[in-house]
Amino acid sequence: MLNFEYYNPTRIVFGKDQLGRLPELLKENKAQRILLTYGQGSIKKTGLYQSIMDVLSDFHVVPFQGIEANPEYTTLLKARDLGREEKIDFILAVGGGSVIDGTKFIAGAMKYDGDPWDVLDKKEGCNFTEAVSFGTVLTLPATGSEANSGAVINRSEFEQKRVMGGPMFFPQFSFCDPTQVATLPKRQLANGITDAYMHTLEQYITYPSGNLLQERQAEAILATLVEIGPKVVENPSDYTLAANLMWCATHALNGVLRCGVPTDWVTHMIGHELTAFYGIDHARTLAIIAPRLYEAMFSGKKEKLAQYGKRIWNLTGSEEEIAKKAIESTERFFQSLGIDTRISDYTENHEGVEARVREVFETRGWTAMGEREAIDPSKVEEIVAAAI
Amino acid sequence: MLNFEYYNPTRIVFGKDQLGRLPELLKENKAQRILLTYGQGSIKKTGLYQSIMDVLSDFHVVPFQGIEANPEYTTLLKARDLGREEKIDFILAVGGGSVIDGTKFIAGAMKYDGDPWDVLDKKEGCNFTEAVSFGTVLTLPATGSEANSGAVINRSEFEQKRVMGGPMFFPQFSFCDPTQVATLPKRQLANGITDAYMHTLEQYITYPSGNLLQERQAEAILATLVEIGPKVVENPSDYTLAANLMWCATHALNGVLRCGVPTDWVTHMIGHELTAFYGIDHARTLAIIAPRLYEAMFSGKKEKLAQYGKRIWNLTGSEEEIAKKAIESTERFFQSLGIDTRISDYTENHEGVEARVREVFETRGWTAMGEREAIDPSKVEEIVAAAI
Repeated sequence: MLNFEYYNPTRIVFGKDQLGRLPELLKENKAQRILLTYGQGSIKKTGLYQSIMDVLSDFHVVPFQGIEANPEYTTLLKARDLGREEKIDFILAVGGGSVIDGTKFIAGAMKYDGDPWDVLDKKEGCNFTEAVSFGTVLTLPATGSEANSGAVINRSEFEQKRVMGGPMFFPQFSFCDPTQVATLPKRQLANGITDAYMHTLEQYITYPSGNLLQERQAEAILATLVEIGPKVVENPSDYTLAANLMWCATHALNGVLRCGVPTDWVTHMIGHELTAFYGIDHARTLAIIAPRLYEAMFSGKKEKLAQYGKRIWNLTGSEEEIAKKAIESTERFFQSLGIDTRISDYTENHEGVEARVREVFETRGWTAMGEREAIDPSKVEEIVAAAI
Repeated sequence: MLNFEYYNPTRIVFGKDQLGRLPELLKENKAQRILLTYGQGSIKKTGLYQSIMDVLSDFHVVPFQGIEANPEYTTLLKARDLGREEKIDFILAVGGGSVIDGTKFIAGAMKYDGDPWDVLDKKEGCNFTEAVSFGTVLTLPATGSEANSGAVINRSEFEQKRVMGGPMFFPQFSFCDPTQVATLPKRQLANGITDAYMHTLEQYITYPSGNLLQERQAEAILATLVEIGPKVVENPSDYTLAANLMWCATHALNGVLRCGVPTDWVTHMIGHELTAFYGIDHARTLAIIAPRLYEAMFSGKKEKLAQYGKRIWNLTGSEEEIAKKAIESTERFFQSLGIDTRISDYTENHEGVEARVREVFETRGWTAMGEREAIDPSKVEEIVAAAI
């Protein structure tokens, strides 16, 4: 087990009919002037927006509508400017991972004097060192952003995604209400399940490293998602199913699974490029890349793939056979949720995509990735080519 | 799934050779005058005391030696007085669950003007409302106290144990170094494994309630402890085994397992009385009571017992048979660690113990306990009688 630090101070308020706690938690955080960030307006249709405004009648609330899926840098700068103008002292993000990720950026950018792109671009000496406090009301279980301190920001004009984070980007609190799941379209539900599943696999399908509890904690999430995944897509208003999905998605990326373990986030790194190029939903890019990455890196991952195949899919045979069948089972699981697993299922315009992705990795100097540092840009090219 | 709140702000610093981080974390917590609380002095023999003093050369450190297993109220009052005299602004607990529990009490009592026994005795209007900040250096994986906000305090003169807690009793940080496990006697190791196992069972052996992830999170801990338990007692200097034990014990009681689930802490409640009467090690009282409690409450717990039997012990047969065999397997597991599971193994002086425990429960008005509120004092008497 590698040395590690674990710290996660976010308060999770989980369950139905909990919004009455919101004013109290805002007061504990000395919030008075609140920027309410949200997406394209679905929360107005579902009634959530009004429910929140009703309980916030004692606060000065400034709404900011329009954070996109894959939160867009230029949109977030507008929110930053509004936040500064309105002397905002707390941000309440109401939405899924994109709204919450975008809010983390806004919270940092409001307190940053320079050009915040320098921070995202990791320019030397450029860091967010403080942030406006914020909380979240989660509408879509998927990314785990409600319980971690990371974010992914998109800048379409450059066709680029950038990651950011740091200890000041933990939400002060997150309301997780499983009844929100019933308001979601099937596509978003399937994406959420896939995203949570892949967050777990990327902290698990590496090599055996004696992290017996962490492996079983990962398997707990995987087994639960396999059990409930297709059912919750069919019956999103089943509270028990929805609650389990929501709690799985939070746990998949709240920092527990990575404690002391090697990880391999290359599926995410490649997936981000596919979203940047083609606008393919984030979760779907992961379902496209993961099976091909596991095939390409098979010799280094086969022991964990076999453990996964036995414990999650009850597969039998030789270690090698089980490991191979585990990849097939994973791909079929995504397909059972209605997720296509090939780039060509999403775009006809894929010629040369493998070289484009390789070039991005080369430009960024990403030459030794994955848990064994064995993935270089030419390996990335091979993986993407196999995923077309 | 029941509604719940989860909040745990303790920073865990896990691994070997991490004490160099201590000064930085103390400075972040504005610590200048530190009360260093510890037990009977084993940390001087192992060298840990000196290692800590070496890294704390920039701080004013006041040592307080002598917190007992089952931390004793009168001892803790002496520490409180010393802390006040020395104008202590931070407490560093170095030890196992007893030292850490005792430190939580000291931290609250230092800031409390009245008689702190009133707080432990739950006298109306008597509460700890603030506490001196504290951190921990864990030496014994067992209770999870390093990552939660609860404590159990002993007052021998009354033959009583009292629980306390609250959000200000989370450690600011906890250093968890698995190499400490190698310094422990077999008896303490066996106790630690048993304590962590029972913390998990008490949040798991209830009734099915649709908490699919939480059940599997509990099973992850149980399966890991079954896998490593006897091995780590034999080979406590095996770092991987020790690290898994330490991380299991933390997770067994850091608040995650109880999220949204029914719990049954009656084994602990009865066990505390056996410790108060006879001085039997806390963990051993749990191993004595749990099998008999599961037999006495069999009809209400058999579904979860059967799930546990299948998933942890790979048992086969009818549901009823599996559930019964699961109890036997649990008792044998404790015995395999060297833990005796009968009161008469520890004392000859057990006549009338069942009536004494019943009377305590009656006096306290504990009449409807367990996940179904089906355990009353006469049921407690039956369980204790069966455990002799």
